[in-house]
Amino acid sequence: MVIVMNLSATAEEIREVQQRLEQAGFQAHFIRGVKRLVIGAVGNRSAIDSLALEAMPGVERVIPIMKPYKLVSREAKGKSSVVRVGNATFGANRLAVIAGPCAVESEEQLLEAARRVRAAGACMLRGGAFKPRTSLYSFQGLGVEGLKLLAAASSVTGLPTVTEVVDEASLELAVEYVDMLQVGARNMQNFSLLRAVGRSGKPVLLKRGFSATIDEWLMAAEYIVAEGNENVVLCERGIRTFEKATRNTLDLSAVPLVKRLSHLPVVVDPSHATGNRHLVTPMSLAAVAAEADGLLIEVHPQPSQALCDGPQSLSPDEFDILMGQLQRIATAVGRSA
Amino acid sequence: MVIVMNLSATAEEIREVQQRLEQAGFQAHFIRGVKRLVIGAVGNRSAIDSLALEAMPGVERVIPIMKPYKLVSREAKGKSSVVRVGNATFGANRLAVIAGPCAVESEEQLLEAARRVRAAGACMLRGGAFKPRTSLYSFQGLGVEGLKLLAAASSVTGLPTVTEVVDEASLELAVEYVDMLQVGARNMQNFSLLRAVGRSGKPVLLKRGFSATIDEWLMAAEYIVAEGNENVVLCERGIRTFEKATRNTLDLSAVPLVKRLSHLPVVVDPSHATGNRHLVTPMSLAAVAAEADGLLIEVHPQPSQALCDGPQSLSPDEFDILMGQLQRIATAVGRSA
Amino acid sequence: MVIVMNLSATAEEIREVQQRLEQAGFQAHFIRGVKRLVIGAVGNRSAIDSLALEAMPGVERVIPIMKPYKLVSREAKGKSSVVRVGNATFGANRLAVIAGPCAVESEEQLLEAARRVRAAGACMLRGGAFKPRTSLYSFQGLGVEGLKLLAAASSVTGLPTVTEVVDEASLELAVEYVDMLQVGARNMQNFSLLRAVGRSGKPVLLKRGFSATIDEWLMAAEYIVAEGNENVVLCERGIRTFEKATRNTLDLSAVPLVKRLSHLPVVVDPSHATGNRHLVTPMSLAAVAAEADGLLIEVHPQPSQALCDGPQSLSPDEFDILMGQLQRIATAVGRSA
Amino acid sequence: MVIVMNLSATAEEIREVQQRLEQAGFQAHFIRGVKRLVIGAVGNRSAIDSLALEAMPGVERVIPIMKPYKLVSREAKGKSSVVRVGNATFGANRLAVIAGPCAVESEEQLLEAARRVRAAGACMLRGGAFKPRTSLYSFQGLGVEGLKLLAAASSVTGLPTVTEVVDEASLELAVEYVDMLQVGARNMQNFSLLRAVGRSGKPVLLKRGFSATIDEWLMAAEYIVAEGNENVVLCERGIRTFEKATRNTLDLSAVPLVKRLSHLPVVVDPSHATGNRHLVTPMSLAAVAAEADGLLIEVHPQPSQALCDGPQSLSPDEFDILMGQLQRIATAVGRSA
Repeated sequence: MVIVMNLSATAEEIREVQQRLEQAGFQAHFIRGVKRLVIGAVGNRSAIDSLALEAMPGVERVIPIMKPYKLVSREAKGKSSVVRVGNATFGANRLAVIAGPCAVESEEQLLEAARRVRAAGACMLRGGAFKPRTSLYSFQGLGVEGLKLLAAASSVTGLPTVTEVVDEASLELAVEYVDMLQVGARNMQNFSLLRAVGRSGKPVLLKRGFSATIDEWLMAAEYIVAEGNENVVLCERGIRTFEKATRNTLDLSAVPLVKRLSHLPVVVDPSHATGNRHLVTPMSLAAVAAEADGLLIEVHPQPSQALCDGPQSLSPDEFDILMGQLQRIATAVGRSA
Repeated sequence: MVIVMNLSATAEEIREVQQRLEQAGFQAHFIRGVKRLVIGAVGNRSAIDSLALEAMPGVERVIPIMKPYKLVSREAKGKSSVVRVGNATFGANRLAVIAGPCAVESEEQLLEAARRVRAAGACMLRGGAFKPRTSLYSFQGLGVEGLKLLAAASSVTGLPTVTEVVDEASLELAVEYVDMLQVGARNMQNFSLLRAVGRSGKPVLLKRGFSATIDEWLMAAEYIVAEGNENVVLCERGIRTFEKATRNTLDLSAVPLVKRLSHLPVVVDPSHATGNRHLVTPMSLAAVAAEADGLLIEVHPQPSQALCDGPQSLSPDEFDILMGQLQRIATAVGRSA
Repeated sequence: MVIVMNLSATAEEIREVQQRLEQAGFQAHFIRGVKRLVIGAVGNRSAIDSLALEAMPGVERVIPIMKPYKLVSREAKGKSSVVRVGNATFGANRLAVIAGPCAVESEEQLLEAARRVRAAGACMLRGGAFKPRTSLYSFQGLGVEGLKLLAAASSVTGLPTVTEVVDEASLELAVEYVDMLQVGARNMQNFSLLRAVGRSGKPVLLKRGFSATIDEWLMAAEYIVAEGNENVVLCERGIRTFEKATRNTLDLSAVPLVKRLSHLPVVVDPSHATGNRHLVTPMSLAAVAAEADGLLIEVHPQPSQALCDGPQSLSPDEFDILMGQLQRIATAVGRSA
Repeated sequence: MVIVMNLSATAEEIREVQQRLEQAGFQAHFIRGVKRLVIGAVGNRSAIDSLALEAMPGVERVIPIMKPYKLVSREAKGKSSVVRVGNATFGANRLAVIAGPCAVESEEQLLEAARRVRAAGACMLRGGAFKPRTSLYSFQGLGVEGLKLLAAASSVTGLPTVTEVVDEASLELAVEYVDMLQVGARNMQNFSLLRAVGRSGKPVLLKRGFSATIDEWLMAAEYIVAEGNENVVLCERGIRTFEKATRNTLDLSAVPLVKRLSHLPVVVDPSHATGNRHLVTPMSLAAVAAEADGLLIEVHPQPSQALCDGPQSLSPDEFDILMGQLQRIATAVGRSA
């Protein structure tokens, strides 16, 4: 940690900063610049947060040197993590494709989707039962009925399933019926929920908040892993920017960057990121070229009838074509699909 | 609602859009432009969300005309709402100042803060007991002990209190001890929590999410009001932008704009918005000049000892000076403090 | 400057960084942390830019400590600058209101605007002759004819004038006819133009680019001042964010912050920032409460006939009312209008 | 165009809107909704900009239906454009790789870079002679000397060259020495410069402004094409967002989207977008997978000695490896390199 004192910091103020550092077990190194004093503090990163140095008189700014997460950092582990959910594998140089409808709407819709995505090569079925919707007046999901349909579709097709949980109640239900829990973008900093999914023991798909920095995303994952649950897969799904031509801006650079910073696998959701089915295919291919460990793709038997996110859903036929193209890209980058 | 068909839309596609509209009770008006067909659909706004027109073949885009919220809209009510919490009044041309520490740390700290802000003219005491923290390693709040200290400080000073709730568990505790519930920026789209605070019957302070649009903010308020709880006060607290010289970018234009769009009172939190105590005073004055119904200001007996948000907390002496300046601005804009 | 070496930096890499620093006249101080080596470099800030340390093997990141601008920094000058243009004064605890139409359209329009804003208390007339327009198909300004009309309106009313210049050609013409040159948001990093207005000797109104950080804005001002022209007034006019309910997001916190960082006067343009005449008045009052040295307000004799920016233009009657309200706020914050 | 009248619009106000529309040659169609009147106006898009309807009393908002650009739109041309510069081809299902140093620094540096990128398969040499630098104190380029070195490197290697122009003066010089002119991100809305490069007759590489929407980018291209110069190649180079872990956020979805909206070729600059050499390779591969017609990559013989952008520059050896990987991706997506 580096503490920059302001131009008019007094000797007394400097002494007080030094004292607080030393009391917390840090060593203080002084560097006198042309105009300013800079203090280098050497010690344990996790003690920094309670030092509150920035509010001390004479302090201009505090610059942390170490990353604020530990358990999920690449430094914490010798190698990349592999998360297994049924037959699906995230990491280990494989390409995992999760597919299915935005929301579970009916037995017929879900089964049709499940059969088709399985036939095309997907390794996991997605489907929302508890939908967090911006508008109170939008379809809110089938709830526990949706979970039962997911379990049924899983037993028919053999695909493991993932669904979003939004609070303690939905979590308690979901653990009974599905194989992996999704924490959605809007709940990425719902720390109670992060702790609860951590304790659940189920693998977790953690979406990046649409305005979360990469550091905040990894710190959210830290909450889950700190509960003893290491089976966390990160999912980039677009960030909010000034550009409105797409629903969000897919931050694909985040994929190779996060893989340098963390040992966790990273998948990409081009459907929510773009909100536009015409962009789902090129962005899926791009994601794999950019080192993603997998994809999360919305597929609906009849997108024009979808109760949720129809404009960004692929039809099963479109998904078939995409999977063929993905195969070629995966081979080109030495990945097995 | 206006539906723009794409250049190559077929007669069949147009007919299907028309049918879906008419089945949902809308009338379809056709406007043939030089190149495109535009369909004006007249009917009930709340039926739109389930139409899913954007995913229909031939549809290029769907432009809603009416606002997506109803209960909180200015049109829904003849006049501005007034929310009363104990002796504090939000709205009615008054200026309500909520003040207190970011986090409740100890009885001594809270009581000292409460006494000083009360003496300076604040009408409500704030203090966090359940702190949602980006880092797992930061101070997480005193929990129910903090709530008890808030209740004690309230009985000593007579000030009503507000504290943040983060989940069902903290909500159940908080309703026993405080007068107003805060939903924080990170939970603005935690719809379970919005419904729960709505059902609680307590007045609610709803912070704008740091990346929420104004429409999303008002739709979040709609979730609360739809539970029968009209006592909602909105709080602008800065949005996330590319500019990092301040913690967030205070979107002060949102204040007069929201007051045109909604009947709910709006207050401003310059402490979290700027993250810099030197900017709290000018931004407080600016907020009142911009028609805010009140302010939420962090005050700590010793900012340099604060466990949370010290750099943006005012000392009691600084708060005294601010309150004097606010009085003059309030008078200049015809507001009673 | 602080250089953070990465975890696997070799002794050789460290030695090379040290050598490059010392060859450039810096002293290197080593701080060995628990995991990383941090190097504090003491020397002349302006030499940093050519060091290119970040690309050296073993270097993880370089953190500058000093601000990248010098001439415009508050540290460079004992007191706040005052810029005088005719009878208009920016700074010195006065409130300078520049007003007039977005674009000069005709003699009649400009004269009517000039007379009315003068009568209401404005101290400078604005009007665009060379309009940088996003669309090739929008009104592009009257060019030199517009400049002549500005000069005529000035001689009738006695108001000094300001107009935007967009290139060398418009600059050469403008210096003949107006008193102050405006560099618009889109040209804030047009460094050739910045140098040219610097050399012109005329006072300059430098708008913040709509995506410029505060540091970049001040570095742009540095280009002008470095040509020997100290008469620079900064103008905050809104930044581009995800929020589209207003044309831009007025970053009012930038005003008191820039006044701490720089000695230059700062004015606010609430018209372009909000794009909405209903918000111009509250944001004007807020700007003055937030320590702005002045305002730039679009006033058109008939906003509904304006060829440019009608929706955000005040009518002369609306401007009269605003000026009355401003007077009261100015008095409340101890400013003379 | 659709005009939404506000709730309290009077019959008189509606009549005036109708009159203005009809005088401008539009037909007005009235759609009476449950609460509001909506007017559909049918006519020529380019006449809209001067209508100024949004400022008329009773008008709430004006929604354009047609795109604001014409010449560059996909609808304007039956097929995708192909731009040829010497032996380099942009479009036509080929993959064009431009490479070279950020800035021309010396004959030795440039020649070494040119030889190596040519040997690796690049089809054009880049190098900056006039550098627009945020800081006045950074290296500003060699000017005309740099142009001469580019011409010399071109005659040795046979590679055509591209360099950035920043004003009329640099443009006049550059046309003598290089084959393609680059308009940089900061000048994307420098309309004088756009017109001037349009008139120059040279092919133009138009970078997206770092805060420009896709519509604004295409409107900027429209300025060039309107001068009769159809040889425009668009370059996505990252946008400014809240995320600071990368220099900018590469908006890769913009590539397939722009290719749907416009007939112009699109290339990607992963070097400036990410600012991090470790991300250049994955983002280059991703760009090609996402349908980019080419890449612009910074290569420096010794990145750690670069006067500009060293941290994002590849060494010639790294570039060799990238070109091998690109070949495999290009083949996988049916593109010839």
